[in-house]
Amino acid sequence: MKNLAHLTTPAFLVDRNIVEQNCTRMREKARASNVVFRPHVKTHKTIEIARMQHGGATGPITVSTLAEGEFFAGAGFRDITYAVPIAPEKLDRAAALASRIDRLNVLIDSEAALRALEKHGRRWDVFLKIDYGYHRAGVEPEDPRSLTLAAEMARSPSIRFRGLLTHAGHSYNAHNVDEIRAFAREESAALNRFKTLLTTAGIDDVVRSIGSTPTASVVERFDADEVRPGNYVFFDAFQAAIGSCAPADCAVSVLATVIGSYPERGEALIDAGALAMSKDLGPDHIDPQFGYGVVCDLELRPIGARLVTLSQEHGKIRTKDRLEVGRQLRIIPNHSCLTAAMYDVYHVVVDGELAGEWHPVGGW
Amino acid sequence: MKNLAHLTTPAFLVDRNIVEQNCTRMREKARASNVVFRPHVKTHKTIEIARMQHGGATGPITVSTLAEGEFFAGAGFRDITYAVPIAPEKLDRAAALASRIDRLNVLIDSEAALRALEKHGRRWDVFLKIDYGYHRAGVEPEDPRSLTLAAEMARSPSIRFRGLLTHAGHSYNAHNVDEIRAFAREESAALNRFKTLLTTAGIDDVVRSIGSTPTASVVERFDADEVRPGNYVFFDAFQAAIGSCAPADCAVSVLATVIGSYPERGEALIDAGALAMSKDLGPDHIDPQFGYGVVCDLELRPIGARLVTLSQEHGKIRTKDRLEVGRQLRIIPNHSCLTAAMYDVYHVVVDGELAGEWHPVGGW
Repeated sequence: MKNLAHLTTPAFLVDRNIVEQNCTRMREKARASNVVFRPHVKTHKTIEIARMQHGGATGPITVSTLAEGEFFAGAGFRDITYAVPIAPEKLDRAAALASRIDRLNVLIDSEAALRALEKHGRRWDVFLKIDYGYHRAGVEPEDPRSLTLAAEMARSPSIRFRGLLTHAGHSYNAHNVDEIRAFAREESAALNRFKTLLTTAGIDDVVRSIGSTPTASVVERFDADEVRPGNYVFFDAFQAAIGSCAPADCAVSVLATVIGSYPERGEALIDAGALAMSKDLGPDHIDPQFGYGVVCDLELRPIGARLVTLSQEHGKIRTKDRLEVGRQLRIIPNHSCLTAAMYDVYHVVVDGELAGEWHPVGGW
Repeated sequence: MKNLAHLTTPAFLVDRNIVEQNCTRMREKARASNVVFRPHVKTHKTIEIARMQHGGATGPITVSTLAEGEFFAGAGFRDITYAVPIAPEKLDRAAALASRIDRLNVLIDSEAALRALEKHGRRWDVFLKIDYGYHRAGVEPEDPRSLTLAAEMARSPSIRFRGLLTHAGHSYNAHNVDEIRAFAREESAALNRFKTLLTTAGIDDVVRSIGSTPTASVVERFDADEVRPGNYVFFDAFQAAIGSCAPADCAVSVLATVIGSYPERGEALIDAGALAMSKDLGPDHIDPQFGYGVVCDLELRPIGARLVTLSQEHGKIRTKDRLEVGRQLRIIPNHSCLTAAMYDVYHVVVDGELAGEWHPVGGW
């Protein structure tokens, strides 16, 4: 990693070969499972990686903001799911985006949102968000009102009812692969049960869309019609801790420089603080002392130190070793999505050498 | 706040009148105390507010990154302190910045950093960072080696020894104004003791530079030669909780829209997640259930709800009330510095109406 010395730190490094390997593995699994592959792009927010997710082409994608939708539409992605429940105030902008591409799927989980779509006066492609236990967004699949809402959507002349979408976000609470597999089975089972109810009610052609990197990474084969993982392109310290990936699958790190050395109190400071790392606590359900990332040397070998405190531009490391001022370290972030979003530029690393820059879209 | 309805949410709102009032109060206190006023600009990172800090003019400032230094130098700020211990790899860039302005003060706290400065081959304006108890950066003022280092700095032909700089970051651990006042007294006392040691050693013209918004906000008068508060321009939920300010002094909020309503589980979702708020936990030493900000209506009245979970683009609110999909809320952030840094644009509000946009500098 000799030419890293010329980068201003903190800097966000992306290992292109690892990203490609992560992309290929997930794409192949989707193909072998005969499901539609609609990866999430919110983790990386770059055209380059979105194309890698589809083997060098454009294809269906999932976005978390309309700004992402507009950015990727401009780069030729024409089949997009906006996978956050849509707010009525965003409908004009979503309609403008939809008119530029082949299909924009939006997401709702309430009568109120259905009424807002109907009032807007265009025909919308819509998924019903299902909550099978994460308790963030979505309707309860066992609640009879959920079937009523789905039936209303299927009947509405303002809507093309696309299907059921769920996100097993609580798989992030898992402690190991077995627990993640149990979440994955229950995710598919919940959708299957609800789809059966719909079929009985005469509602057909219902797409079952699932997605979370932990579940998608550990299953042998997908039991769904469509999958939407996103974080798998980078993985991170959290995913490695719960067993979604091996540590060597982590494709990103923050390059930092030691700016203070305090061996008498077993501490050092780096120039990567909260704005360089994000303040995501990581897998604290597995290790409450995990810290804000895995502290590694330039070859990405953990050095047995903990990143214990972050202020705006300072990161405090606790270590038994003396870390000299000026030494460079690499920190594998807890949560690559949030860390990546702190940067306007990603430095691409190939075989240990800098090989270009990628620029993510930001904002909303 | 009628024209807020047209903003895309999440959006960062800055009340200009409150910022001006906060700026005036602190500037007047510095003037009455007869100290140099060198406010930090890292909280807002905008030219507009840096000028407001100096009553509509340029003046001495403090920055947390070289990118900020370059940005403010370009806008006419010619006396800048870079208040993070400087890494050797940043010296070339710092030297280039120093050559563009009247004075760039840098910060060190080690022999290693002193040697790096001496090796670089220009004359540097340098403060010695003093740790009087925060235990982030700095030398122990009671450690005899600290006096040795200061004496070496004062003797070095590569250095103009400017003085002692400390930051009472642990004042953020206070529970109330009395505790903050105690930190403030100890901060000044620690610097005064160390300065006396320097005087005895024949080292004169030593500037005592202090700065932290809690201490600066609660003292009647500054006991120092220079002050560097920053957060006071915006304040935030944290500062109000520990008593640095009144709730009405908080100048910033995040405008968000309810995108999901789940009264059966006492929850709602907003479109302000981790990327809109930052994941700063706030004053959890005062209230571990504080959540990620204070949830308010459009008039900034708290609605008695808690923002309990943040994922990338979702914020989960716990509330006894039904919050309808589409309703707009304003969230006072826990930590305005980190929240502001998530935005490329600030929407300026004056007397409840939108009155322009400000654009902060980002990156490093």
